[in-house]
Amino acid sequence: MRAAVVTNAEFTVEDLPTPIPGRGQILIDVSRCGICGSDLHARTHADAVADLAAATGYDRFMRAEQSVVLGHEFSGTIVDYGPGCHQRWRTGTPVVALPIVRRDGEPHLTGLSTAAPGAYAEQVVVQESMTMPIPNGLSAEHAALTEPMAVAWHAVRKGQVGKGQTAFVIGCGPIGLAVITMLKAAGVRTVVASDFSARRRELAGVCGADIVVDPAVESPWEAAPKRGRVNGVTDILGLGFDTMEKLRAIPKLPWWYAFRLAGKLDAGPRGPVVFECVGVPGVIDQIITAAPPLTRVVVVGVCMETDRFQPAMAVNKEIELRFAFGYDPGEFRDTLHLIADGTVNPAPLITGTVGLDGIDNAFTVLGDPGGHAKILIDPASRAVTP
Amino acid sequence: MRAAVVTNAEFTVEDLPTPIPGRGQILIDVSRCGICGSDLHARTHADAVADLAAATGYDRFMRAEQSVVLGHEFSGTIVDYGPGCHQRWRTGTPVVALPIVRRDGEPHLTGLSTAAPGAYAEQVVVQESMTMPIPNGLSAEHAALTEPMAVAWHAVRKGQVGKGQTAFVIGCGPIGLAVITMLKAAGVRTVVASDFSARRRELAGVCGADIVVDPAVESPWEAAPKRGRVNGVTDILGLGFDTMEKLRAIPKLPWWYAFRLAGKLDAGPRGPVVFECVGVPGVIDQIITAAPPLTRVVVVGVCMETDRFQPAMAVNKEIELRFAFGYDPGEFRDTLHLIADGTVNPAPLITGTVGLDGIDNAFTVLGDPGGHAKILIDPASRAVTP
Repeated sequence: MRAAVVTNAEFTVEDLPTPIPGRGQILIDVSRCGICGSDLHARTHADAVADLAAATGYDRFMRAEQSVVLGHEFSGTIVDYGPGCHQRWRTGTPVVALPIVRRDGEPHLTGLSTAAPGAYAEQVVVQESMTMPIPNGLSAEHAALTEPMAVAWHAVRKGQVGKGQTAFVIGCGPIGLAVITMLKAAGVRTVVASDFSARRRELAGVCGADIVVDPAVESPWEAAPKRGRVNGVTDILGLGFDTMEKLRAIPKLPWWYAFRLAGKLDAGPRGPVVFECVGVPGVIDQIITAAPPLTRVVVVGVCMETDRFQPAMAVNKEIELRFAFGYDPGEFRDTLHLIADGTVNPAPLITGTVGLDGIDNAFTVLGDPGGHAKILIDPASRAVTP
Repeated sequence: MRAAVVTNAEFTVEDLPTPIPGRGQILIDVSRCGICGSDLHARTHADAVADLAAATGYDRFMRAEQSVVLGHEFSGTIVDYGPGCHQRWRTGTPVVALPIVRRDGEPHLTGLSTAAPGAYAEQVVVQESMTMPIPNGLSAEHAALTEPMAVAWHAVRKGQVGKGQTAFVIGCGPIGLAVITMLKAAGVRTVVASDFSARRRELAGVCGADIVVDPAVESPWEAAPKRGRVNGVTDILGLGFDTMEKLRAIPKLPWWYAFRLAGKLDAGPRGPVVFECVGVPGVIDQIITAAPPLTRVVVVGVCMETDRFQPAMAVNKEIELRFAFGYDPGEFRDTLHLIADGTVNPAPLITGTVGLDGIDNAFTVLGDPGGHAKILIDPASRAVTP
């Protein structure tokens, strides 16, 4: 089979042997595979990512000098089963799968490990237990978006955004756009999106952002409707005050009950929820400095460098930072079905398609944040320009 | 009345006019007032704190060159009421109060603003709506601990620690000790405390810590009992895997239901909850680097400098940082009653008492983290050595 192999950051398209599915595994023909920001990282900073992964207990991430087939956002059709499978679906069934396979008892990230070649190829091996059929005749293009949209769905769930709370999406690359899409699917009424690129702002609007801001011109915090009870630290300080004085004006309400009630009335998050989808040093600090008190920040962008911030500012405002990573199997399945039943539309994210020979070019193009969002790979295509 | 006044970081004990309670305010005789870490900050870094407070919308924090009476952790007895009060309690009633008063419609932090002199004095003005009587004949010493213990109670509530989760307390100064006390009061079964000082480790044990560690000798993470399902990123990756394969082995369980169930089984926090009670640059990053995945960190220590950390490490582990500040009126009242009914014992925190003339000396002594925990001021005492 043909596959794009990266070694020391260089791509070559090679003819590799057909992979053999192991126990509990399936061989699939790849229909489409998305190019992920992690792939761009892995191509040029594999060793840094591998060191970081090793420090957190995963020592099987690819190294720069290794030859690896990337690709973990894919759809395909079933070709063959390995031993010990349930064989639940017929050959030719269109499927997606979580990009994780077991080898020698250990989980490996598909497309980011030499032991688990990815889907920048005509064929890829998946784990049967992680595979699900594509429902409703959903296209292979849209099904391939399940993985990145699941990352966004996980982030949105982690953000626990109330429908009446304002959500801010800082950075409108593929993940930012997916987060906007998922926030609207979750019924959040006000989504404010911010990006320096005009093209990305346009896509943010298409994905459903209610207010779209160029941060070079206007602050997203100023553009948002004023909402909630807390805009500054003075409000935090005054909150218990105002509540207490109002409560104590109520005849016959016991004073001690007023205290308890004031605590309950003042409790809980009242600030907005911000999704950091940039992943560049300084952005988290900018958000902490500019966002209103009691803001919850879901960090989805992956900043690989050491970053700086002011803890005292975060303390004063009672900021919350929730770092998000991946998704669980239920979230992956829910995402597939949200796409298949039309609740979410991934179409605006897809800005181009190339064949295996166009991957190198696509990576170059994706280096410019103002240009493309998601570029898909179609192994059957000969296109080199997305 | 006699009061300790700080100007440009120098204390002088002066004879000031008796303060006059304004509308809705009460004059109280101070029984005891605790020395807070914020007071040490305010003495030497007032301008930095004031700039930070101004940046978050509170522009009335004291400046270094201003003459201010510090003190916001106090107990006292009622002397006189200002106009417009409910006058609910008789003169001489022992009370505590949240350290916040209204002046010209704006809230001011008592003891940290020229417009709201604090309780390093024989008398202090409080807001009636923020005042509560001390129940059960609780001593003035212990009642004065209500404020710092309320900070700890708020942090523990913010941490949402399950009784079966492990709690780590990093740093056993007054706030760390208060957090340990409150965690045990909340029924958390395993509290691991860590401090470089032998004296503080001893106090941590007295406050109820189950495992006490000298981080120079042993890692708190190694000392804790292994608990939960996640110890490394491989476990996060493998979690869905194991769950899915187990579920799919169940005959007649629909495959799609297995996905949903796997998501539910894998969801929710499974790591420990860490309380950062040091407030020195680098500690947050140390925790992110060493703590297991899915750890929630409640940041209670206030680091005034710019700090550095690795976002990618926090992302990989899905760390959560919750910055805690103050308390609400309900938490303050609950804390007073937890102390008064004997559920929590603040006695181990109190390591000394001085008169107004001993404050300068007490501040010096508190500069050594190995020595004292909480030093109280008794305005009626002439003691200069805690």
